[in-house]
Amino acid sequence: TQNYRITLLSGDGIGPEIMAVAVDVLKAVGKQLDLSFEFKEALMGGVAIDATGEPLPEESLQACRDSDAVLLAAIGGYKWDNLPRHQRPETGLLALRAGLGLFANLRPATILPHLIDASSLKREVVEGVDIMVVRELTGGIYFGQPRGIFETETGEKRGVNTMAYGESEIDRIGRVGFETAKKRQGRLCSVDKANVLDVSQLWRDRITALAADYPEVELSHLYVDNAAMQLVRWPKQFDTIVTGNLFGDILSDAAAMLTGSIGMLPSASLGASGPGVFEPVHGSAPDIAGQDKANPLAQVLSAAMMLRYGLDEPAASDRLDSAVLQVLDWGYRTGDIMSEGMKAVGCREMGDMLLKAL
Amino acid sequence: TQNYRITLLSGDGIGPEIMAVAVDVLKAVGKQLDLSFEFKEALMGGVAIDATGEPLPEESLQACRDSDAVLLAAIGGYKWDNLPRHQRPETGLLALRAGLGLFANLRPATILPHLIDASSLKREVVEGVDIMVVRELTGGIYFGQPRGIFETETGEKRGVNTMAYGESEIDRIGRVGFETAKKRQGRLCSVDKANVLDVSQLWRDRITALAADYPEVELSHLYVDNAAMQLVRWPKQFDTIVTGNLFGDILSDAAAMLTGSIGMLPSASLGASGPGVFEPVHGSAPDIAGQDKANPLAQVLSAAMMLRYGLDEPAASDRLDSAVLQVLDWGYRTGDIMSEGMKAVGCREMGDMLLKAL
Ligand SMILES: CC(C)[C@H](C(=O)O)[C@@H](O)C(=O)O
Ligand SMILES: CC(C)[C@H](C(=O)O)[C@@H](O)C(=O)O
Repeated sequence: TQNYRITLLSGDGIGPEIMAVAVDVLKAVGKQLDLSFEFKEALMGGVAIDATGEPLPEESLQACRDSDAVLLAAIGGYKWDNLPRHQRPETGLLALRAGLGLFANLRPATILPHLIDASSLKREVVEGVDIMVVRELTGGIYFGQPRGIFETETGEKRGVNTMAYGESEIDRIGRVGFETAKKRQGRLCSVDKANVLDVSQLWRDRITALAADYPEVELSHLYVDNAAMQLVRWPKQFDTIVTGNLFGDILSDAAAMLTGSIGMLPSASLGASGPGVFEPVHGSAPDIAGQDKANPLAQVLSAAMMLRYGLDEPAASDRLDSAVLQVLDWGYRTGDIMSEGMKAVGCREMGDMLLKAL
Repeated sequence: TQNYRITLLSGDGIGPEIMAVAVDVLKAVGKQLDLSFEFKEALMGGVAIDATGEPLPEESLQACRDSDAVLLAAIGGYKWDNLPRHQRPETGLLALRAGLGLFANLRPATILPHLIDASSLKREVVEGVDIMVVRELTGGIYFGQPRGIFETETGEKRGVNTMAYGESEIDRIGRVGFETAKKRQGRLCSVDKANVLDVSQLWRDRITALAADYPEVELSHLYVDNAAMQLVRWPKQFDTIVTGNLFGDILSDAAAMLTGSIGMLPSASLGASGPGVFEPVHGSAPDIAGQDKANPLAQVLSAAMMLRYGLDEPAASDRLDSAVLQVLDWGYRTGDIMSEGMKAVGCREMGDMLLKAL
């Protein structure tokens, strides 16, 4: 039996409900494929703030470091929105990314045939969309120094952040972009703002230089404003997108929303070595928390990404992906993806159906 | 007779063709309303680089300064794409914005009933969309210092740009946002990334403080990633958006593309005093330049914005807006907005029809 230590960060809002489903499903697939998972809960986000005053206590970060992979559900909520920034749930997420060196964020935006009508875009525009956004996650304007709110000579306040990338940072995320594209349709689009920003000019130069090592990948470049337009106009033109932290934040969310069902989208955050973090794209939905209404499928697909990218267990990952397709085939839908003629279920019942599908 | 001095920057690609139509239309409306326009051509963009080596020669900037308003068509093209940045057409545009102090960029994204089917979004999602993006245009990461590509101690290169806003910069664009919303539906959405960026935290604090002066305006805040999502999901929720330079660049282009017909969208760039610059959102389309295929309507609508926001001649502006609706009602379409059953026309013929409509 292969044994894996998994840290669970269930977080806030609907987090614990959807995490429970993912854990059940992981246990079931583990039994089938002779994998065992040693789950350990740790606190992060609002629950951690309430318990310890900090969004990511050192103990939680250490638990993550000591594990083979981290499964995260969702964090945040109105309750913590007005705390000073260093005490907010999101700050815990940024500290987790930095603490584990998770420089590569993989965000698929795939549209399932079952859910095409949920999209705000026309069927013919989104049918078959399958985009992977590779976002740099530990650099750029999120972490650049200097930063802060300073007083100028005239006595007025000035807010400052720094968007910076060094060559080695660009190269390592660039390589993830090329490698990802290679395993997909072989087309990589690098997004920057090189017509205005120096940091983007360096980005473009390095990505262009890397292309020599990946002759099988077709590289193109787009300015970020144009990329946002093209995502709306004709998303099927994209295969893999590689970009910096801020542009990736914006574009991956826009790409996710093209599908119309962000309750279905997982993500993976990976470092050079050590455990990765796997989490749904959606938020903690405090308004429906504790009511058994949440959609657990993105959490289950995040567990599938964990098996594939974090633990190198592609067979188990495939089973989870198939189970999700199966329950959709059967017509089961949580409220967020409900449509006429389908069977409405809650979070727990969706979990039961997944187990049945497995 | 009221006399206005207008500087024309026809630029590159299809620029001269669409500018010719706008000038004819302005002359015609001038005759009707007893306005006279003194047009003066100046060089900017690729044509300026070819003639003088610089994208915005001092003489052109001075001509703009000496006029009541500047009408710009489009600049850029493959030919100049590989020049060093300080010699590129876009650099001329940035220099024009800075040189004239054009801190407020107004970008409407309106969908005309005639062209709804051109959108990649479903009819019910885009029908009636009418968004005004108010983008800060002379600050933020576009102009922040320090910037450049520097060598670090380890000998690697590092690209750096600075996103900075002072309180007074935020206040003056914020007020344009509130004033604009007040004249529209009274809803202002401020977009930032205050959960991560200090500069956005200051932005949010100031915009929130300004709200006290505009009790008739309903203010909301969105993070930029969520704003990109919401634009795709349900654009009708937006009335007026106010945001910084980079976020405005991305979101105004995404909003424009929701309409499916960026050949129809104008923009205005305004300073505290002095001439504004009015230009279409679309580019110079070098591939169809000189073939009488271009759509001149965004240029004509830009002239209408010039009359309204630059010269305070709302009656003349209304006539231009009506003429554009009229030619669409008649069924005339250039190639970019052509659809079944409509009458295909070239750039010049569209101009003739506009004159007839006037
Ligand atoms: C919550 C926030 C800090 C975070 C980010 O901006 O990275 C989120 O938007 C995301 O994309 O994971
Ligand atoms: C050409 C470029 C410098 C410019 C910008 O980024 O501002 C353009 O995208 C725009 O929005 O007018």
